[in-house]
Amino acid sequence: MKVKNLQKLDTFREQHSKLVESEMTNAIQKIKSPAMLKEAMIYSVQAGGKRIRPILLLATIEAFGKDPKAGVSSACAVEMIHTYSLIHDDLPAMDDDDLRRGRPTNHKVYGEAMAILAGDALLTYSFQLISQDPKLEADKKIKLIQLLSTSSGPEGMVGGQVADMKGENSTLSLEELEYIHLHKTGELLSFSVIAGAIIVGASQHDIRKLKDFAYHIGLCFQIQDDILDLEGNEQLLGKPVGSDVSRHKSTYPSLLTIEGAKKKLAYHYDNALTVLHEVDCNPALLEQIAELIVKRDH
Amino acid sequence: MKVKNLQKLDTFREQHSKLVESEMTNAIQKIKSPAMLKEAMIYSVQAGGKRIRPILLLATIEAFGKDPKAGVSSACAVEMIHTYSLIHDDLPAMDDDDLRRGRPTNHKVYGEAMAILAGDALLTYSFQLISQDPKLEADKKIKLIQLLSTSSGPEGMVGGQVADMKGENSTLSLEELEYIHLHKTGELLSFSVIAGAIIVGASQHDIRKLKDFAYHIGLCFQIQDDILDLEGNEQLLGKPVGSDVSRHKSTYPSLLTIEGAKKKLAYHYDNALTVLHEVDCNPALLEQIAELIVKRDH
Repeated sequence: MKVKNLQKLDTFREQHSKLVESEMTNAIQKIKSPAMLKEAMIYSVQAGGKRIRPILLLATIEAFGKDPKAGVSSACAVEMIHTYSLIHDDLPAMDDDDLRRGRPTNHKVYGEAMAILAGDALLTYSFQLISQDPKLEADKKIKLIQLLSTSSGPEGMVGGQVADMKGENSTLSLEELEYIHLHKTGELLSFSVIAGAIIVGASQHDIRKLKDFAYHIGLCFQIQDDILDLEGNEQLLGKPVGSDVSRHKSTYPSLLTIEGAKKKLAYHYDNALTVLHEVDCNPALLEQIAELIVKRDH
Repeated sequence: MKVKNLQKLDTFREQHSKLVESEMTNAIQKIKSPAMLKEAMIYSVQAGGKRIRPILLLATIEAFGKDPKAGVSSACAVEMIHTYSLIHDDLPAMDDDDLRRGRPTNHKVYGEAMAILAGDALLTYSFQLISQDPKLEADKKIKLIQLLSTSSGPEGMVGGQVADMKGENSTLSLEELEYIHLHKTGELLSFSVIAGAIIVGASQHDIRKLKDFAYHIGLCFQIQDDILDLEGNEQLLGKPVGSDVSRHKSTYPSLLTIEGAKKKLAYHYDNALTVLHEVDCNPALLEQIAELIVKRDH
């Protein structure tokens, strides 16, 4: 795997991450609700992160030669859903984390009750954002909302969370491990790519291929996560290496060995690029995102 | 205020409560997700209750001479959102209730983490249900989803919850009290009436009048709740009388005296009926629902 020049993606990411961050903040600031609720919502959407979901969505629109701005409400929506899931995940009843990306978690700052409500508000507001987008046609909005609710609800992310919780401290089969990852993280990554395709009005053929692309990069994302937990640099990762092992978590390396996991990563990366080239679009940015997912060091 | 014959409403309620309950259960059973998550979701949607929101929605459709079945997905959606709000409300970090309608609360049976996720799943799934309704046109679905997200999110129910939480143990002004109730309970009652009107394609005039009707019955609902807390029958209520007083909660009687609260109830009831009669529909069922809200003993 040859490392390509990621310069174009870097510029695109920087510019569009800022756009999505300011749009999320502006949208929340305009909400008519108690100030403390908005503060708690903004605290977590401004907590940084890779913004991989909104970038994937906007890059897909760009790949079809359209203006990425058409996807801003959907990009904010998927990032708000990702953010709400982190707030609820960090709660004492769930993972009980005090820190997230080096900052105190939402409930540590605003209390548990407010953190639950800020999560509920972000989740609900994401659907409001898409539904009231003045630029999208009603039938596209419905497709986006149907896909977003399926990807993030009991058939998607929340289902994956439950499976993950049930699988803790037990050795999973590869099939169970993939179910968890495809649902817990894969579904929202997949939403992001397909949402971009829906917004530009891509063909059914292209949507099918992009779904496959998203499937493969979703698995790459998780396999690389597992590899970094063993081989990564603690300072870059911002968390201790080997934490999966010490928590007896089933991972790709634990089920397949580190070599097996790397082979699987290469397999899904190759497949992602192959199906991407069958889509009638300019694949440059999406290729670079796939590369970034596979080669990232944190 | 003369007590009318509620027989027609009784039959309608019984029949349509059963319909909504079985549709909610069937819809959840069909979800592809871990069985335990579905069990936790079904446990709470089957916990009974007055089903006032779905009945209001379906009765509004009936009032316009259309088949209430056209509103079943929206009726299930609003009841699922009401249900999720109760699950999250009951959590230890919020009201910390062990019992709801005489049964152990969701987190007492399934644990806190699952209760948080079951609530998240019900909230998300309610949007999925409307978005995938095969009988509604896309523009109506978008109007319903926009209204449901606004009514239940930070500008609606969740905003009301936060205001309620912040107002605990302090004496509120009448304005603050009304803000809390209009948002915490009023918005979803209002959604129910307007959703029915959207589904039948009612005129803007009728929607405006129905919004006023919903505003007045929403306040009646809460004022009667406060009166029952002082004058109700413990056995019928299923909770101790006087609990608002012992928790130092601001209520209509505490701010206006019991006589003042009853006058305010009569005022909003009269207004509700007046605006209802300005709507081009058969008001019988909606009149009876208003009467039920005002005269109920639990």
